[in-house]
Amino acid sequence: MTRPPTPTLDRIAGPSDLRHLSDRALGTLADELRADVIDAVSRTGGHLGSSLGVVELTVALHAVFDTPRDRLIWDVGHQCYPHKILTGRRDRMGSLRQKGGLSGFTKRSESPYDPFGAAHSSTSISAALGFAVGRDMGMPTGDAIAVIGDGSISAGMAYEALNNAGAEGRRLFVILNDNEMSIAPPVGAMSSYLSSLSQQGPLAGLRAVAEGMEHMAPKPVRDGARRARELITGLESRGTFFEELGFDYVGPIDGHDMGQLLAVLRAARTRATGPVVIHCCTVKGRGYAPAEGSADKYHGVSKFDVGTGVQSRTKANAPSYTSVFGTALADAAARDPAIVAVTAAMPSGTGLDKMAARFPARVFDVGIAEQHGVTFAAGMAASGLKPFCAIYSTFLQRGYDQVVHDVALQGLPVRFAIDRAGLVGADGATHAGAFDIGYLGALPGMVVMAAADEAELVHMVETAAAHDSGPIAFRYPRGAGTGVAVPERGEVLQIGKGRMIREGTGEVALLSLGTHLGECEAAAKVLDSQGISVTIADARFAKPLDMALIARLARSHGALITVEQGAMGGFGASVLQAMAAHGLLDHGCRVRSMCLPDRFIDQAGPAEMYADAGLDAGGIVAAVRRVLGGTGGIVDLKAARDMM
Amino acid sequence: MTRPPTPTLDRIAGPSDLRHLSDRALGTLADELRADVIDAVSRTGGHLGSSLGVVELTVALHAVFDTPRDRLIWDVGHQCYPHKILTGRRDRMGSLRQKGGLSGFTKRSESPYDPFGAAHSSTSISAALGFAVGRDMGMPTGDAIAVIGDGSISAGMAYEALNNAGAEGRRLFVILNDNEMSIAPPVGAMSSYLSSLSQQGPLAGLRAVAEGMEHMAPKPVRDGARRARELITGLESRGTFFEELGFDYVGPIDGHDMGQLLAVLRAARTRATGPVVIHCCTVKGRGYAPAEGSADKYHGVSKFDVGTGVQSRTKANAPSYTSVFGTALADAAARDPAIVAVTAAMPSGTGLDKMAARFPARVFDVGIAEQHGVTFAAGMAASGLKPFCAIYSTFLQRGYDQVVHDVALQGLPVRFAIDRAGLVGADGATHAGAFDIGYLGALPGMVVMAAADEAELVHMVETAAAHDSGPIAFRYPRGAGTGVAVPERGEVLQIGKGRMIREGTGEVALLSLGTHLGECEAAAKVLDSQGISVTIADARFAKPLDMALIARLARSHGALITVEQGAMGGFGASVLQAMAAHGLLDHGCRVRSMCLPDRFIDQAGPAEMYADAGLDAGGIVAAVRRVLGGTGGIVDLKAARDMM
Repeated sequence: MTRPPTPTLDRIAGPSDLRHLSDRALGTLADELRADVIDAVSRTGGHLGSSLGVVELTVALHAVFDTPRDRLIWDVGHQCYPHKILTGRRDRMGSLRQKGGLSGFTKRSESPYDPFGAAHSSTSISAALGFAVGRDMGMPTGDAIAVIGDGSISAGMAYEALNNAGAEGRRLFVILNDNEMSIAPPVGAMSSYLSSLSQQGPLAGLRAVAEGMEHMAPKPVRDGARRARELITGLESRGTFFEELGFDYVGPIDGHDMGQLLAVLRAARTRATGPVVIHCCTVKGRGYAPAEGSADKYHGVSKFDVGTGVQSRTKANAPSYTSVFGTALADAAARDPAIVAVTAAMPSGTGLDKMAARFPARVFDVGIAEQHGVTFAAGMAASGLKPFCAIYSTFLQRGYDQVVHDVALQGLPVRFAIDRAGLVGADGATHAGAFDIGYLGALPGMVVMAAADEAELVHMVETAAAHDSGPIAFRYPRGAGTGVAVPERGEVLQIGKGRMIREGTGEVALLSLGTHLGECEAAAKVLDSQGISVTIADARFAKPLDMALIARLARSHGALITVEQGAMGGFGASVLQAMAAHGLLDHGCRVRSMCLPDRFIDQAGPAEMYADAGLDAGGIVAAVRRVLGGTGGIVDLKAARDMM
Repeated sequence: MTRPPTPTLDRIAGPSDLRHLSDRALGTLADELRADVIDAVSRTGGHLGSSLGVVELTVALHAVFDTPRDRLIWDVGHQCYPHKILTGRRDRMGSLRQKGGLSGFTKRSESPYDPFGAAHSSTSISAALGFAVGRDMGMPTGDAIAVIGDGSISAGMAYEALNNAGAEGRRLFVILNDNEMSIAPPVGAMSSYLSSLSQQGPLAGLRAVAEGMEHMAPKPVRDGARRARELITGLESRGTFFEELGFDYVGPIDGHDMGQLLAVLRAARTRATGPVVIHCCTVKGRGYAPAEGSADKYHGVSKFDVGTGVQSRTKANAPSYTSVFGTALADAAARDPAIVAVTAAMPSGTGLDKMAARFPARVFDVGIAEQHGVTFAAGMAASGLKPFCAIYSTFLQRGYDQVVHDVALQGLPVRFAIDRAGLVGADGATHAGAFDIGYLGALPGMVVMAAADEAELVHMVETAAAHDSGPIAFRYPRGAGTGVAVPERGEVLQIGKGRMIREGTGEVALLSLGTHLGECEAAAKVLDSQGISVTIADARFAKPLDMALIARLARSHGALITVEQGAMGGFGASVLQAMAAHGLLDHGCRVRSMCLPDRFIDQAGPAEMYADAGLDAGGIVAAVRRVLGGTGGIVDLKAARDMM
């Protein structure tokens, strides 16, 4: 595929070059930039739709503001590809989201033009306010500009930040990038409200610019102008939500009209004395017909053909864990009318869309609102319903206090379905599901399970549905399952009981939690061939622990190694602490715990990430050799895999 | 002190009795209830001001709604004393906040009239929406009513819930209890906005009732009425924030006017079809002059004399950790102009008021907004400032994702000052600082310290101020210090180095983290007297661990016991995991970890709570005896303390 011609863009080495271009040339540049983004993402895959929506905005912001001294903070960060291209990273776009390549998000270590990294949503206004305070206290920093979507602004954190920034009254710019989409169409009252603001008819654009100027004026002038406008337009003067929170409000403006963008941003930059919201309407996927025409606006795509828009999705050999969960839950919901489900703006990502298709009134998309989502589920549990709260491991961190205070402390039977456990691949360290085993395992009364394969996941859905005496969580990874046969209906597992997978002769036992059972089995094959006999057990439960199983393994083996897809302080730590309490460490069984290392793991393929972490079959072989007194030297991982 | 006469209240066995009383008698009941609350709290101490502000509201809600079938959910729960008195717990008010007594908050296990426990703020609307869904899905539950303060509604979680409830459109009542106070006067733009709503002049009360009725009407009628009112009053028709989020808005009404309350609640109950906010203005401390006249409105008081309002504060022998922290930070701020501080609505509780008194522009009270507070601090750190983020252990759970994603992942040097670590006494399990060692210790690059006494705390403030290479946290308990001399200025501790406290002869070593060092020393005295030699070390750091110290202790002692004021999965788990990795568990040193047990500990005195947890000097003595092969029998704790 030939690259599109981009003569203007080719002459741009960095944002300062934009500041010498005419407004017309900036428009041309935006067109070329859009073509370049489409071309780049067609070769790598990535977050396309959001990036296409902010092409003009990106050009205008860098042309008007003095980046990187002015701090431009992209909320979530997945719309930053045009920004990356303009800020010296164009030649590395081919490495996007790959091992050793550019992050798919903004990242401080990658560029001075990324003053604050993001990947979780709704953090930008808080960070921008921090920079604004720094500037006011003499730090070498200019203006702070947060670009936040209408989906992100529905999160409580963004509201907290608006509330604080409005009261602080410091000069600060919030660009509300309103495309009426988050990953799915956004939900909630705020979203409807923003729609009502943006649907003010054909006059809106023109009026907005005038209003933009007006808002920059001192307050008495402003109030006068507002009254005058009211007389002229006949529209009632109603303060917006943002004005009520202490912001000046400009908009709505057309985020694809370069002239309007430049005029408003220049006026705002020149005249703002306090916090300003610029409400900018954009179209997700703008300028690329297949994206604009698609339901998810090409939010996240694999490599695709630019001409046709057809994505080259590699067909997995087995259904994804997400899909298996979604089907199992929908089936359970068909059997039990008390089952309900909660998602925080991820109906498709969590697989809840399957249940929603069959029982739409029983699936609740609360928006990007994990705090509320968890406690809402707790309230439903208290009313007698059986809520499944499906939140990715990394995002459940947003609702941690609610898990502790509203669920665990009250012993309410909320079922947490924790997708994206462990390392997740291209989304990198920000999305790793690393900490949930530890942060949930510390809570009294919590049951924590991890599925070894997709059949186990089906059992765990059934187990959770049946568990009415308190909270229960089950974790499973991103991606395709192992291909095992999936039962029509799961069995209710006995709480706190693991299972033996293979019995060795007593040299070493591997106690696995979760889908690294496959890596344990691969390692065992290699070790077998080297004359080392390996026992393998699947713990199934990180809490409560199967102490009988652990005691049996410890007493009958020279060494015991726990294996998990999570951080230190999780399953392995818990096993050690329980073994210590039971005196099981005192009698010579050498115990080791294999978990994620104490550093963040950058994006790559999941297998590469686990290899980087030393947490794969090769790592397990090496660990076994070390604990048995061998050298722990280089392991031929390929050989290990070939033996599977 | 004689109790006030309460003839009407004395005849009330439960809320159903209220429903037979005349409106006038309900007024009388409220007066008696207020006197009874004042009398009860004067004998026990507790949260007085908030409870006095909702006396009429409590009576009116129970009179109008069909509790407990209708679910009345008090946000935070510290205003629930009148509610407890009316719901069958009057005779136990003398046990409030004491061991074995009534909780100071609402609690599901205590009464069917407490459908959802609370103690952290801003959870009530989420829970109420959960009950409303349960009702609509056929669960045996009536209406859901959330009573939330103007401080609590500033939290993002409440906004998330309003946003979701407004979009859901289900019948639901939110009583906004607007007393223009949280613990301190509330901050933020929302608070100013609510003030502007409530200061609509003398007409407001009357107009509000009319408006209340109007809002219950079908929408076309309502819009007509609104236009009519506009013509009559000349006030512009401006939608409130709540209406923009999809709620009907009634108010503001006078929350101490029983007639108005009953009229509005009855109208709302009869006619509401969707979500309704009833904006109710109250006065914190209402009806008790010393409370109304006090700056904190007697938010939390010790026992007091009803006549004079004088509280019988027991003078501590040593300054509190909070106070020592506050002074040390203010002193550090005087030396370094880059130091700034963040509190989430707790300027006095965290001791930041001391720095604020000297450097008001450098202390930021962000409101009840831990998510924003943490990321705001991260933004300041990214700008070059040195932020101290002072949040209680239990509330930092609210900002966990922000600690992970915005601070730790970016390696930003935010300093977390974590007060109320460990068990906290009268506030009970909901406020326990149990989990922070684990949830922070799992994060790569995080430094976690715990102060053994107030002098150590001063060193840790200095150490944190000097630590510019990444995030650092230090934890310390509620209450008075040990009385050691506090240095004028702390020393910068070497990161990851513990200290030896006393050297024994090799039988057993105690490795203490935090203020249980005193309990370790008490236990050692007892054991000395029994001929058991004890080594004690203060780890100082939960992360990074002092592996040289740990190795030395393990190699030279028959047993090693870690001691911490936190849950499983914390320091002890981390020590075990590191020892396993270094092969230090393989050579016969018996290791045990003492931490909080795997259950929630109910309120009592802190020492009683630790005794309940088996985590006091007596528990340590028993653990040492057990690990050395003794019986671990009864320990004379009094003797242990007498030896100190």
